[in-house]
Amino acid sequence: MSTKTKAYGVQSEKELLKPLDIIRREVGANDIKIDISFCGVCHSDIHTARNEWGGSKYPVVPGHEIIGRVIEVGENVHDFKVGALVGVGCMVDSCHNCDQCHNNLEQYCEKGATFTYNSRDKHIRGQYTYGGYSTQIVVDKEFVLRIPENIDAAAAAPLLCAGITTWSPLRHWNVKKGDKVGVIGLGGLGHMGVKFANALGAHVVMITTSPSKAEDAKNLGAHEVLISKDEEEMSKHKNSFDFILNTIPVGHKIDPYIALLKNDATMVLVGAIEPLDPFHGGSLIRGRKRISGSLIGGIKETQEMLDFCGEHNIVSDIELINIQDINEAYDRVVKADVKYRFVIDMTSFKN
Amino acid sequence: MSTKTKAYGVQSEKELLKPLDIIRREVGANDIKIDISFCGVCHSDIHTARNEWGGSKYPVVPGHEIIGRVIEVGENVHDFKVGALVGVGCMVDSCHNCDQCHNNLEQYCEKGATFTYNSRDKHIRGQYTYGGYSTQIVVDKEFVLRIPENIDAAAAAPLLCAGITTWSPLRHWNVKKGDKVGVIGLGGLGHMGVKFANALGAHVVMITTSPSKAEDAKNLGAHEVLISKDEEEMSKHKNSFDFILNTIPVGHKIDPYIALLKNDATMVLVGAIEPLDPFHGGSLIRGRKRISGSLIGGIKETQEMLDFCGEHNIVSDIELINIQDINEAYDRVVKADVKYRFVIDMTSFKN
Repeated sequence: MSTKTKAYGVQSEKELLKPLDIIRREVGANDIKIDISFCGVCHSDIHTARNEWGGSKYPVVPGHEIIGRVIEVGENVHDFKVGALVGVGCMVDSCHNCDQCHNNLEQYCEKGATFTYNSRDKHIRGQYTYGGYSTQIVVDKEFVLRIPENIDAAAAAPLLCAGITTWSPLRHWNVKKGDKVGVIGLGGLGHMGVKFANALGAHVVMITTSPSKAEDAKNLGAHEVLISKDEEEMSKHKNSFDFILNTIPVGHKIDPYIALLKNDATMVLVGAIEPLDPFHGGSLIRGRKRISGSLIGGIKETQEMLDFCGEHNIVSDIELINIQDINEAYDRVVKADVKYRFVIDMTSFKN
Repeated sequence: MSTKTKAYGVQSEKELLKPLDIIRREVGANDIKIDISFCGVCHSDIHTARNEWGGSKYPVVPGHEIIGRVIEVGENVHDFKVGALVGVGCMVDSCHNCDQCHNNLEQYCEKGATFTYNSRDKHIRGQYTYGGYSTQIVVDKEFVLRIPENIDAAAAAPLLCAGITTWSPLRHWNVKKGDKVGVIGLGGLGHMGVKFANALGAHVVMITTSPSKAEDAKNLGAHEVLISKDEEEMSKHKNSFDFILNTIPVGHKIDPYIALLKNDATMVLVGAIEPLDPFHGGSLIRGRKRISGSLIGGIKETQEMLDFCGEHNIVSDIELINIQDINEAYDRVVKADVKYRFVIDMTSFKN
């Protein structure tokens, strides 16, 4: 039986978030029902709530960094028991049949993955998916992750988006011990990039415009800090990086960063889903350098990342908030005034 | 003993090319002296003669697609005999000691390769190198290529730049039988890209703005022609290419071409040594697509390309001209009015 569930969302792009009731589907044979404990606040939540990327379908209930406990499972679910600590990230379904899905790259599903919010819901005709700013969610078992019990559950929430978004390119481009890795931008993504690159044994250089971030970056695991406005310092690091993870969330000049790459090395964009400034063809041609992009990560890879976090005791640095404070949190995210991720404590729904 | 040699060049960026005498060095122990038979005309020659990239040192004697016969060898030269058909491409020296040189990537030499013209000459203090628009040249044996005797010598000249520039990325990114390969732009580079991709067994799609080039492209070896202005056709080819070779020599919008790539596939820039229009970060992020660049190729790879051309009887399509017609040829290159490369017949120096 479908269930009326408490949530927070917006009815139009001009509104603030406020309480609303949504319908969660009946638990099907392959489904898992989760009592949500925590949900991270990602900048994408804000873009979607405010229709900044276009295509938002209202009401929008954001949230794709979900941590909770299993409270009910369908008859085909054998790998998850009631009470298990689980997570749900940016996707809740995909076609399961295309080459990308077969290669564990559901995020690039040729039919289009079903994202956790604002995607057409396969189960409820005419409805779009509702995310984790709510007390419960029902998800296909293939898209539910196991969360190691030894890590802090609230601080694990951002692993489901910020974590996998930075982990996936570091692993795909095979970052390894001794590599010199740059992480550009110290926000929700960047701080996870630093932690992961450090844990993988790389020599990590935080690349930032803000000298004020140097100490924090080093505490997170950066071995060096490179201030990108300092041309002399940038020049010293030319042609020296094996890999650069670029987390800048807005358009920007990339030539100065390409100059930092060794020949044949790659810079991967994970933040800027928008137009970048013109770049010089010669930046790539002289040194066979590469630019690429990467979108979150597949489910198998997300589980590997979570297991790695359990083994290495890695979580995000967070500020825990009540759901009633979400609009203020949005304003602070926009001003980059958070270290480094807000996470909503869902017990606050009872306030 | 150094030799006064006839050449064509410019004394300043505003001038037309005209006859001048240059000094070629004495043949050293490692040197080969070549009587030049043919020299191709590359767009880079024009950029340098006219100082369009900045940094030109006058007089400029262009030409880096050189074919000729050995007329003298130094005492350490054992692999080349007097009379051998040889070639010289874009480089005449490098440091021989850096990682790039050790990896047969002299074009990316960390100390800077010595290019065939307009590079500081290691042998004659204060002089810059002079290219192939001249009757003879003296070159270090490590930078002299063997030209197969079975191919047309004049039409082989453009292999030394246009050929290796397109061959190197096709090989480096491992283009193979059955791959769907796009070649953007049908000029000096593009027409070689089509021939090589075809010879490597790929399904070759010529991507061009000009429907008028369709028949020529097919004659050169393209299996399909895709008109880039036709949005419906472009849409049909979305996410279908294994590799794209982008030979467009000027800044342009790259988003429509990135859209053609399969996930994880690469587009390589070989023409646009200048700023490109803004591109959308999401174009790369959604599909982990890649952009790179590639600069000519190393000496070992150039020899492999020439040997391949000998085996497959591949040469460029050329228009043979006299040196006295070089200024008119430049004007036609700028208008893209050449199929597909001018080659200077050096016997015309005697006219």
